[in-house]
Amino acid sequence: MPEYAIPTMQWAQVFEKNGGPIEYKQIPVPTPGPDEILINVKYTGVCHTDLHAWKGDWPLAMKLPLVGGHEGAGVVVAVGELVKDIKIGDHAGIKWLNSSCGQCDFCMASDEPICESAVLSGYTRDGTFQQYAVVNAGHAARIPKHLPLDAMAPILCGGITVYKALKESQAKAGNTVVITGAGGGLGTLALQYAKAMGFRTIAVDTGDEKAQICTQKLGAEVFVDFMKEDVIESVKKHTGGLGAHAVILLAVSEKPFQQATEYCRSRGTVVCVGLPAGAKITAGVFSTVVRMLTIRGSYVGNRLDTQEAIDFFARGLISAPYKVGKLSELPKVYELMEKGQIAGRYVLDTSV
Amino acid sequence: MPEYAIPTMQWAQVFEKNGGPIEYKQIPVPTPGPDEILINVKYTGVCHTDLHAWKGDWPLAMKLPLVGGHEGAGVVVAVGELVKDIKIGDHAGIKWLNSSCGQCDFCMASDEPICESAVLSGYTRDGTFQQYAVVNAGHAARIPKHLPLDAMAPILCGGITVYKALKESQAKAGNTVVITGAGGGLGTLALQYAKAMGFRTIAVDTGDEKAQICTQKLGAEVFVDFMKEDVIESVKKHTGGLGAHAVILLAVSEKPFQQATEYCRSRGTVVCVGLPAGAKITAGVFSTVVRMLTIRGSYVGNRLDTQEAIDFFARGLISAPYKVGKLSELPKVYELMEKGQIAGRYVLDTSV
Amino acid sequence: MPEYAIPTMQWAQVFEKNGGPIEYKQIPVPTPGPDEILINVKYTGVCHTDLHAWKGDWPLAMKLPLVGGHEGAGVVVAVGELVKDIKIGDHAGIKWLNSSCGQCDFCMASDEPICESAVLSGYTRDGTFQQYAVVNAGHAARIPKHLPLDAMAPILCGGITVYKALKESQAKAGNTVVITGAGGGLGTLALQYAKAMGFRTIAVDTGDEKAQICTQKLGAEVFVDFMKEDVIESVKKHTGGLGAHAVILLAVSEKPFQQATEYCRSRGTVVCVGLPAGAKITAGVFSTVVRMLTIRGSYVGNRLDTQEAIDFFARGLISAPYKVGKLSELPKVYELMEKGQIAGRYVLDTSV
Amino acid sequence: MPEYAIPTMQWAQVFEKNGGPIEYKQIPVPTPGPDEILINVKYTGVCHTDLHAWKGDWPLAMKLPLVGGHEGAGVVVAVGELVKDIKIGDHAGIKWLNSSCGQCDFCMASDEPICESAVLSGYTRDGTFQQYAVVNAGHAARIPKHLPLDAMAPILCGGITVYKALKESQAKAGNTVVITGAGGGLGTLALQYAKAMGFRTIAVDTGDEKAQICTQKLGAEVFVDFMKEDVIESVKKHTGGLGAHAVILLAVSEKPFQQATEYCRSRGTVVCVGLPAGAKITAGVFSTVVRMLTIRGSYVGNRLDTQEAIDFFARGLISAPYKVGKLSELPKVYELMEKGQIAGRYVLDTSV
Ligand SMILES: [Zn+2]
Ligand SMILES: [Zn+2]
Ligand SMILES: [Zn+2]
Ligand SMILES: [Zn+2]
Ligand SMILES: [Zn+2]
Ligand SMILES: [Zn+2]
Ligand SMILES: [Zn+2]
Ligand SMILES: [Zn+2]
Repeated sequence: MPEYAIPTMQWAQVFEKNGGPIEYKQIPVPTPGPDEILINVKYTGVCHTDLHAWKGDWPLAMKLPLVGGHEGAGVVVAVGELVKDIKIGDHAGIKWLNSSCGQCDFCMASDEPICESAVLSGYTRDGTFQQYAVVNAGHAARIPKHLPLDAMAPILCGGITVYKALKESQAKAGNTVVITGAGGGLGTLALQYAKAMGFRTIAVDTGDEKAQICTQKLGAEVFVDFMKEDVIESVKKHTGGLGAHAVILLAVSEKPFQQATEYCRSRGTVVCVGLPAGAKITAGVFSTVVRMLTIRGSYVGNRLDTQEAIDFFARGLISAPYKVGKLSELPKVYELMEKGQIAGRYVLDTSV
Repeated sequence: MPEYAIPTMQWAQVFEKNGGPIEYKQIPVPTPGPDEILINVKYTGVCHTDLHAWKGDWPLAMKLPLVGGHEGAGVVVAVGELVKDIKIGDHAGIKWLNSSCGQCDFCMASDEPICESAVLSGYTRDGTFQQYAVVNAGHAARIPKHLPLDAMAPILCGGITVYKALKESQAKAGNTVVITGAGGGLGTLALQYAKAMGFRTIAVDTGDEKAQICTQKLGAEVFVDFMKEDVIESVKKHTGGLGAHAVILLAVSEKPFQQATEYCRSRGTVVCVGLPAGAKITAGVFSTVVRMLTIRGSYVGNRLDTQEAIDFFARGLISAPYKVGKLSELPKVYELMEKGQIAGRYVLDTSV
Repeated sequence: MPEYAIPTMQWAQVFEKNGGPIEYKQIPVPTPGPDEILINVKYTGVCHTDLHAWKGDWPLAMKLPLVGGHEGAGVVVAVGELVKDIKIGDHAGIKWLNSSCGQCDFCMASDEPICESAVLSGYTRDGTFQQYAVVNAGHAARIPKHLPLDAMAPILCGGITVYKALKESQAKAGNTVVITGAGGGLGTLALQYAKAMGFRTIAVDTGDEKAQICTQKLGAEVFVDFMKEDVIESVKKHTGGLGAHAVILLAVSEKPFQQATEYCRSRGTVVCVGLPAGAKITAGVFSTVVRMLTIRGSYVGNRLDTQEAIDFFARGLISAPYKVGKLSELPKVYELMEKGQIAGRYVLDTSV
Repeated sequence: MPEYAIPTMQWAQVFEKNGGPIEYKQIPVPTPGPDEILINVKYTGVCHTDLHAWKGDWPLAMKLPLVGGHEGAGVVVAVGELVKDIKIGDHAGIKWLNSSCGQCDFCMASDEPICESAVLSGYTRDGTFQQYAVVNAGHAARIPKHLPLDAMAPILCGGITVYKALKESQAKAGNTVVITGAGGGLGTLALQYAKAMGFRTIAVDTGDEKAQICTQKLGAEVFVDFMKEDVIESVKKHTGGLGAHAVILLAVSEKPFQQATEYCRSRGTVVCVGLPAGAKITAGVFSTVVRMLTIRGSYVGNRLDTQEAIDFFARGLISAPYKVGKLSELPKVYELMEKGQIAGRYVLDTSV
């Protein structure tokens, strides 16, 4: 078994209060408990959720001061005494769910993401914007060694999330699924997972560049440009008039949601994934009832979903565009993110 | 095989235009096509849907002039040449679905209630407010001969509807289901079906009389009086803090709907059944997503649901309170209905 | 609407008694009933079931004299008065299920293949080894006009059958499914449908030619040669030691069946499809129980499965090798079939 | 928090080799690990599995010397440092699953009973035939304090097992389930759970006494005496000719199994539960396929099934007859068990 020299201090991005300055500074390396492991985070993705955490605009209590980040891939450097199936030197990942109680009705049913005692990486516990981070061993993602850790990082949040949403959509192989925001970070992942699951996809987004990427590279059968076309009519036209079997709403705002219930096929499912602060779902009762529609929220995957999502990636079926930056550049990345200037995902190298 | 003398003319309640006068008059007895049967309707229930049909306040095209009614139980007096498994003299029922195309994706999947070519009794085809009515043989409810036809009538709409909603709720035996409007016509049926299906129930309604009926006679474990108690707190208290596994919203209006999403357990299902004209569902995206809630519309049952709902009734597990009136009194029943003065269901005898 | 001159006599292959001579002769063209259509069969596949029917070695009563055949693709030349959604000139197919009662518990649940009154093409009703055949309109396969009718024919039995078996396997996208007899007629279809459904496949068969076709052309990830390898060990090795999520046993004989229960993963499903006369399934109770295995028989698809199977074919995802012969050559095809000398499917042109 | 004086030595029933003498003697009290708890077992059931363990006739490696027993109910007297939701003084139970790896595909999917690293109470780890026993905290059954610990004990194995089998049967409320061996220990539990889940039951067993108990006390609708009646004909007669939706085979031997596939309805499920050493399942392929039957092994419930099974018991819906003996009398109980002289369950008091 390899051994790793673990420093006592490390670099991290820390903020003391929501919206306040984010300091790049040295803090102590944490120690794992008996059922935990310590990961030397090599790469960490940056996600919209991290921005929400920093701003503090979600109705969910958090830890302060906080090291954010919840998409970390790295090398295991220490394991607690109870941990049997992870060894030092293994590759492992940190995701949004850092641990859960293991014992509530939800945990017992493998629905740990809705455990009321769940601990959240980069939100209620220090996350992956540091060089060494701790995670409950049961919740660490197992990463096969031949996979590149930088490309892996965005799968640990975006990949799992869209894969789970597609499972929750109840769509079956051969069904047509609409992906809204198809050209964005989650969207490009969703199109690829959907294809790997045997679904046919209609990408909804705007712009010729996105159109080309979605249909030429990501497997979408059809691209609907919401700036140029009537989305409801287009989706219906491409689905024999009945509408799509499922819709994955990657960002819910009022108009797209209402449209979705209209181009979703009777008995179909509209899955809400995105979390714009304060947004509302509004649907007409009459049509929801007589068309037997299902509207469903999907959060993140459980541990098995995580391994399955990684498995699709390991088979080479998923490739998400990303840029590599440095951990020290985090505030700049937030700026770009707020301006909507990031195409794909930013992944930060923690070694520099 | 018995033979029945079929008259050429019969009594019926007919209206020419929405909201106009309803005339009790003689009209011709219809003739069944090769795949249809003619039923001598003995009793017909009166349902809120009939009132909506007369007023014409639903966004759904209808036949005019119209004989309303869609809960008819009676005796088969003529069968088309292609009908093999129904004989003259059998007891049969007419429900909301009078026929469907049989061939669309929905019909092939036994989801005929959402068939886009469905024919609706008392809405797009003359219904059960007449002495003789026609129904597609495949859609006629099979009624065992020992069952009383007057008690049977309300099962053919209310019974099927609540049974279907309970199936759509995804609740499993031992789960707790909240029934809102539990003391009303649909609610009393829902409590009994829920119990027969192994669910535990919390009845939400108001008033001591309803409280007593729900808990003493209809099997509710708990009654929550929405005028006296905080419904959200009460449901949570009676479900170990987590909320109910499912909620059946028999009448959707904004406040009860929003409350339902709050006392529904994470991963649970809020089923919308009622059809108030113009009502909206509104839910917060954040909580829907992180709690992985499902909001689902449930319409009416398919043919198998119908026979199953009748089977529970035939086993003596369901008894719905009803008053028997005369077909000629229909307008008076509508008046009482509008005033909210009907406890249970009205069933009309067509013979007089 | 086009019109077709329908002859009164036609060519057909008829046998009077099981195992007796099959005569190629002229017989009357049948007339469709009010809910039926008449199809001018252009091409008909020849299936092992037809051989069983001729021999009469199944424990299932049949019609005699009989025109066999149940994989017919052609043009609609007459429609009964009740048929609304099929027009003269449409392309349509005849499959094993020719009609069903439409009203039993199974039919109402879209499980018409197990209807106890099902009528079977080429078995209890004259089938597709004739130029003009009748089918219940509801059970006619709808065939898009741009699809080649000869390639279509084998999909109408083999395609539907393997697609249904894969659905019944409960496998999910990303799971591994073993196909036994992968290089045979059903096997080559099964590998392609499995891939289209997002499954990973292990092909079990023997011979280098089959190995190459399965892995190079049909999408199998692994080929296990049962003459050269220990099948149980090989499957486990390729599935991380746990075994495959599902096994499709295209021909059940004792040894492959017992092997299947050993290389099927715990909680997995072994689906039996083939129908060797008199064969038995035998499994140890202990291992079936503690590994929670499911053993399931899968017959043929329902009407919706049929349309879905055609849809995968129409998308270009399925291509089954076949040879085209003449209807007059049927006895010769049976001979080749008995000798196991047919690679892929034989499709007969009825026009000559 | 209460404190308990934990002795260093305790009474236990121990055997050194399979089939050898079972000694009632003093052994050390074990110490719980950080994720374990120590339970002062008040009552322990005696199960056929214990007899198999002592004899060593199952193809499954075990610990030796061994303290058997896997149905223990008692009081928590010590908890490991990582255990958060169980306190000293709580009531808890030990069941067959003592712990599992928590991390394999099965554990992550809440299928821990098929975890390949599962630890089994009274089989691969010392069980409940001692006064103090250790269990992984996650696998300890949570027992509400108002429940009697002696009556509780048999629920922890028999109750969970039959409840799980009923869930695995895929039966829905209103369906008919056949319970074979209905008058035995598992059978009486199965009839009551089935009723609580909304199923209709047909009890198969023999003798007038059992007939009366099954139909008068345990909710069976019909009793079929396999010594006096043709079981296949009787079940069909009571299920409208189609057969039962599901069959729970509490002890699988060849004849009852083959019968079960004949009186099980098409598309129905035959669930195997019992584990007679060396028994085989044998079914005809033809009928399994054309009737689309499912044959499924069901083992024991997972942690959530356990809590659900206890919940039905806590609601007063389940009452299993049992006799209370002393732990010191275990060998005598085995003797009675081998002679088939135990009606219901034996529960042993460990205090004496
Ligand atoms: Zn939890
Ligand atoms: Zn994220
Ligand atoms: Zn339809
Ligand atoms: Zn109604
Ligand atoms: Zn065939
Ligand atoms: Zn049928
Ligand atoms: Zn495990
Ligand atoms: Zn036991």
